[in-house]
Amino acid sequence: MKLDLEADLADLLQQITDIYSVSDNETELANAVEQTLQDYAHLEVIRNGDAVIARTQLGRDRRVLIAGHLDTVPVANNLPSERREVDGEDRIYGRGTCDMKGGVAVQLKAAATLSNPANDITWVFYDHEEVDGIYNGLGRIANELPQLLVADFALLGEPTGAVIEGGCQGTMRFSVTTTGVAAHSARAWLGHNAIHDIAAVIEKVANYPVGEVTVDGLVYREGLNVVAISGGIAGNVIPDTCSVEINYRYAPNKSTDDALAEMQKLFAGYELKVNDLQPGARPGLDIAIAKEFVSAVGGVPRAKYGWTDVARFSGLGIPAVNYGPADPSKAHADDEYCPVQDLYRCYEAMKQWLENDEVAR
Amino acid sequence: MKLDLEADLADLLQQITDIYSVSDNETELANAVEQTLQDYAHLEVIRNGDAVIARTQLGRDRRVLIAGHLDTVPVANNLPSERREVDGEDRIYGRGTCDMKGGVAVQLKAAATLSNPANDITWVFYDHEEVDGIYNGLGRIANELPQLLVADFALLGEPTGAVIEGGCQGTMRFSVTTTGVAAHSARAWLGHNAIHDIAAVIEKVANYPVGEVTVDGLVYREGLNVVAISGGIAGNVIPDTCSVEINYRYAPNKSTDDALAEMQKLFAGYELKVNDLQPGARPGLDIAIAKEFVSAVGGVPRAKYGWTDVARFSGLGIPAVNYGPADPSKAHADDEYCPVQDLYRCYEAMKQWLENDEVAR
Repeated sequence: MKLDLEADLADLLQQITDIYSVSDNETELANAVEQTLQDYAHLEVIRNGDAVIARTQLGRDRRVLIAGHLDTVPVANNLPSERREVDGEDRIYGRGTCDMKGGVAVQLKAAATLSNPANDITWVFYDHEEVDGIYNGLGRIANELPQLLVADFALLGEPTGAVIEGGCQGTMRFSVTTTGVAAHSARAWLGHNAIHDIAAVIEKVANYPVGEVTVDGLVYREGLNVVAISGGIAGNVIPDTCSVEINYRYAPNKSTDDALAEMQKLFAGYELKVNDLQPGARPGLDIAIAKEFVSAVGGVPRAKYGWTDVARFSGLGIPAVNYGPADPSKAHADDEYCPVQDLYRCYEAMKQWLENDEVAR
Repeated sequence: MKLDLEADLADLLQQITDIYSVSDNETELANAVEQTLQDYAHLEVIRNGDAVIARTQLGRDRRVLIAGHLDTVPVANNLPSERREVDGEDRIYGRGTCDMKGGVAVQLKAAATLSNPANDITWVFYDHEEVDGIYNGLGRIANELPQLLVADFALLGEPTGAVIEGGCQGTMRFSVTTTGVAAHSARAWLGHNAIHDIAAVIEKVANYPVGEVTVDGLVYREGLNVVAISGGIAGNVIPDTCSVEINYRYAPNKSTDDALAEMQKLFAGYELKVNDLQPGARPGLDIAIAKEFVSAVGGVPRAKYGWTDVARFSGLGIPAVNYGPADPSKAHADDEYCPVQDLYRCYEAMKQWLENDEVAR
């Protein structure tokens, strides 16, 4: 099937929202994107797994990379999409409308329209962003086809409420396990209760002094949270093991090594296992090309809290920012939505920037 | 199939251990017990669900009730049974050998042998002891056929290491749940972490001053333990709910109402849900008939820690004690076993008591 990129942005967002694409199920949407973009002669279209890369080859001095992921978190009875006016605002509700099919809709329409941009553009629509970092489609492309990601500046269309958000926080997920000795609960003194020992671990997490950190002029608010806990064998047995999974969101002035060392120190003496460890990205808004983008779009940049693939570009040496429609606090929420006005605003800003880019003149 | 009750007690224990009878799967063993005991003319055999009652009707002045459960906790790669000498001791290893097929073997052989006892005897072999109290076979008989449980004294063959254990502790299992607000873990301050709140609940449990309580001359050691915990939605979501299951083992000087009130006070302000609440039983060794049993068997009685169905007899107004082969601390253990010598000792003591019971003379 093909998408109708001539349609209004709100209709286009509903088209792609209604193609189910929970992580690991992106094939149908990737096929639609690939087949649709192949009709545009100004684009070279490359398929990699369930990612689609489309680029202009106009020989411009500079190349901009604009990326968005196709997958969503699991559906929570919030598909198909619905267009509703709430609080006086015209909105598209549904899984993925905020994170981040709104950004993908803007990018698809811009990819079709900008046939003669001031900069060459590489559009990347990729898979597996909402799962463990090892599966990430952008990471796979960076490994398999690194030449496709060469660019002077990158823009990631994650939801930012149509405001430029610089950098992103790093994220580390790890488990801490306590070990005891099983026994019948009527003779608890013959055993050692591993769940009782986990209380001290939770307290360490809850009382850890996370705070606000200023990096390159933007303020990041860190977080340390237990996100899962499990333990227990039966109602009459003293549990001999208990595990918590902890998520550390850290400001981008710390490296992954810094974050790991910090947590290893905090949980010294405990069994700690790292499940996911992703670097943050400094906002980098002090470099020239970033300043030019900010000036073209307008508004005051702010810090990005959530981890985004901006950090991958940062790792590849490409300055990158987040900029996309919808309120990021609605990402993953059951009542996830994208304001229709945000779609228009992002699309117009992007057209203005790429059609009038002083950098490439 | 029938059991060979003429066999040596060690062989008999292996026969019944090797008939799988995890709770809810007692039918095959109950059939074997029923069919085997029907061959003995001095016994009237009654079937109720997967329980078998066999009794003498000799018109004696007094009636003794002797009970054992047929079910076991789930198998942990410890069937079929094995006879091995360990630490110089002849043992039968396998699920249920300790809790409590050793006692059942002694009772089956005694039921077959004691054709002309000094007291009338009611033998009860019942189902569903290792699961929630509402399913208990003895409880079902008490409801459906209460006249079958009328007796002057009761003996429960739970493992006691062939020592008389008086009474039993009460047990209460309940859950405490904390409730928070879900949010993306990169913006934790928009949510409220329910797992962080559970730490205070665990601390209350771990720090609760449980102690030793003397009741009718026997010392009971109480216990309060978290036996299970669960919470968490995903690695990047602040959890909005967390639950612990808590097991309170309390001395038999407290009623179920006392125990409930105590826990409600301890967890005031929390959501508390009772999953199981069983009364304890005072040892009651100060009454005449109990003293006579103690004197016939010999040894020094001690307190019973685990909850046993002795409490049901206590509720029916029947003085009751625990007395059976095997070390109770091996109940539910993967290396559960019954020393062969304990079988002989319990069998001989029971024969001596019931063939020479001064009470009924």
